[in-house]
Amino acid sequence: MVNNELLDMLIIGGGPGGLTAAIYALRGKLKTLLVEKTGMGGQIALSAVIENYPGVDPISGAELMAKFEEQARGFGLETESAEVSAIEDAGDHRRVVTTDGEYRAKTVIIASGAKWRKLGVPGEAEFTGRGVSYCATCDGFFFRGKEVVVVGGGDTAVKESLFLTKMVEKVHIVHRRDKLRAEKIHQEQALAHPKIEFHWDSVAESINGESTVTGVSGKNIKTGEEKVIPVSGAFIFIGVLPNSDFFTGDTDKQGFIATDRMMATSMPGVFAIGDVRDTPLRQVATAVGDGALAAYSAQDFIEKQPART
Amino acid sequence: MVNNELLDMLIIGGGPGGLTAAIYALRGKLKTLLVEKTGMGGQIALSAVIENYPGVDPISGAELMAKFEEQARGFGLETESAEVSAIEDAGDHRRVVTTDGEYRAKTVIIASGAKWRKLGVPGEAEFTGRGVSYCATCDGFFFRGKEVVVVGGGDTAVKESLFLTKMVEKVHIVHRRDKLRAEKIHQEQALAHPKIEFHWDSVAESINGESTVTGVSGKNIKTGEEKVIPVSGAFIFIGVLPNSDFFTGDTDKQGFIATDRMMATSMPGVFAIGDVRDTPLRQVATAVGDGALAAYSAQDFIEKQPART
Repeated sequence: MVNNELLDMLIIGGGPGGLTAAIYALRGKLKTLLVEKTGMGGQIALSAVIENYPGVDPISGAELMAKFEEQARGFGLETESAEVSAIEDAGDHRRVVTTDGEYRAKTVIIASGAKWRKLGVPGEAEFTGRGVSYCATCDGFFFRGKEVVVVGGGDTAVKESLFLTKMVEKVHIVHRRDKLRAEKIHQEQALAHPKIEFHWDSVAESINGESTVTGVSGKNIKTGEEKVIPVSGAFIFIGVLPNSDFFTGDTDKQGFIATDRMMATSMPGVFAIGDVRDTPLRQVATAVGDGALAAYSAQDFIEKQPART
Repeated sequence: MVNNELLDMLIIGGGPGGLTAAIYALRGKLKTLLVEKTGMGGQIALSAVIENYPGVDPISGAELMAKFEEQARGFGLETESAEVSAIEDAGDHRRVVTTDGEYRAKTVIIASGAKWRKLGVPGEAEFTGRGVSYCATCDGFFFRGKEVVVVGGGDTAVKESLFLTKMVEKVHIVHRRDKLRAEKIHQEQALAHPKIEFHWDSVAESINGESTVTGVSGKNIKTGEEKVIPVSGAFIFIGVLPNSDFFTGDTDKQGFIATDRMMATSMPGVFAIGDVRDTPLRQVATAVGDGALAAYSAQDFIEKQPART
């Protein structure tokens, strides 16, 4: 099926970035469609409590995203449930191929997000948002004065561990190797830090708890020794995977979409925002800023196109 | 008076950007002080209605900023009422000179905002937020199906006029010269646009109304002819002035502070966010994104400093 109507803007993804772009585009009277493959709200809809989105009292991710969606619907948002498989530049418009047919749009905003890499151990899914976290900036404050496990040994894991030392009592870094892969300055600080204890050559085997996390079971993969670390939280920093398979323009090595300061990608008329782009920080606040700016840039792109004859 | 305590972060300005940076810094346990010269909230506190800040139902600017402030206070925000006159790089810290004495801080976040240039005619101040606006992206939607005056002939005035044509019935551009100073493509589109009427060689002399705007009185400065244009709104696009006089690092020609993608300025440990930086879009949403990112960057800057001996 090909939808022959030429849209001004097709937005891929119904998280905070995509919904903000929609609010701005619709208030600017752009003919806009938002395509989302699963449920509206994106990854943040899984967060139990968000207390650092300015202007909104502590709220669950699902409730906050329901507010975003309601606001966008109030301006006339239309959505389709479909998965995008390709974006092609067709000269005076973009062709977007989805499981629900093809769309034509003058501009495309990619707001398809990213997935935190999962450990895949028992308890991880069950306690996500109740002790298991993938973001220290988001959730570290909730563990003031408590002990936590950090799983991972890359730069993010070490940097986030240092960040956590300022609020938690102790950070246990569980790392499968016997050395870190972080930036040298972060390594040195972490190795010397009185609040950080290292569990080398070790993997987390399960995350235990009742209503919230009470401990992490780990194993030393060299000696076979098993132990339980009693903690209130487990932060998992083993990678972030962008949802960008359908995009053929420029990305960084990990697949995050390269953008300029106007949120433009290497493909004309195609913009990327929020977690899927090569951004230094992945927050609702930053996705919202990206979304407003991308809608503005798309508007400008449309205005500068030669008139259709 | 010199305050000898070494702060982690001093934030200049209590608008949406500064308060967001404060929320992030305080949750990250940075020792933070926010300095504001007038009242908290910044320029947005003057807006009558904001309906495009995602997640918050239509609200006055003052109320939205009160929510931001309350949230930051909940995390322990401390503020001082003072005006900053200089920021100096003192090697391992920044020295901030204010009317209330000097402060020392590892990092400084400049969130001092900008002022829209005012016409200075009767009715302008009185009807600001009730028909007089300085931002089409913010307020254009409120004038759906109505007629408005745009004052100005530069690129912003013409671009914003084109944007307004999508929602309003008619745009009257009042410009003191007999030609535009906008980008060529915008000029051509505006001159050919059926919804735009030009009032050349003309100035606005007063903005008239009762509870809201009902018209703009103008005068042709060549012929002396006076006329009243009956409209519901007046958009004034005659320039934006950054509040950056105290900053000696890199700016653009108009004084907006140059930043990289991490919000860092040319001065080590000094970041700039929101309206005062060389940003393409000035919105609460974008200031919030900037604020979160700058707090994160400042944190990183602090962590990478050599240990003090």
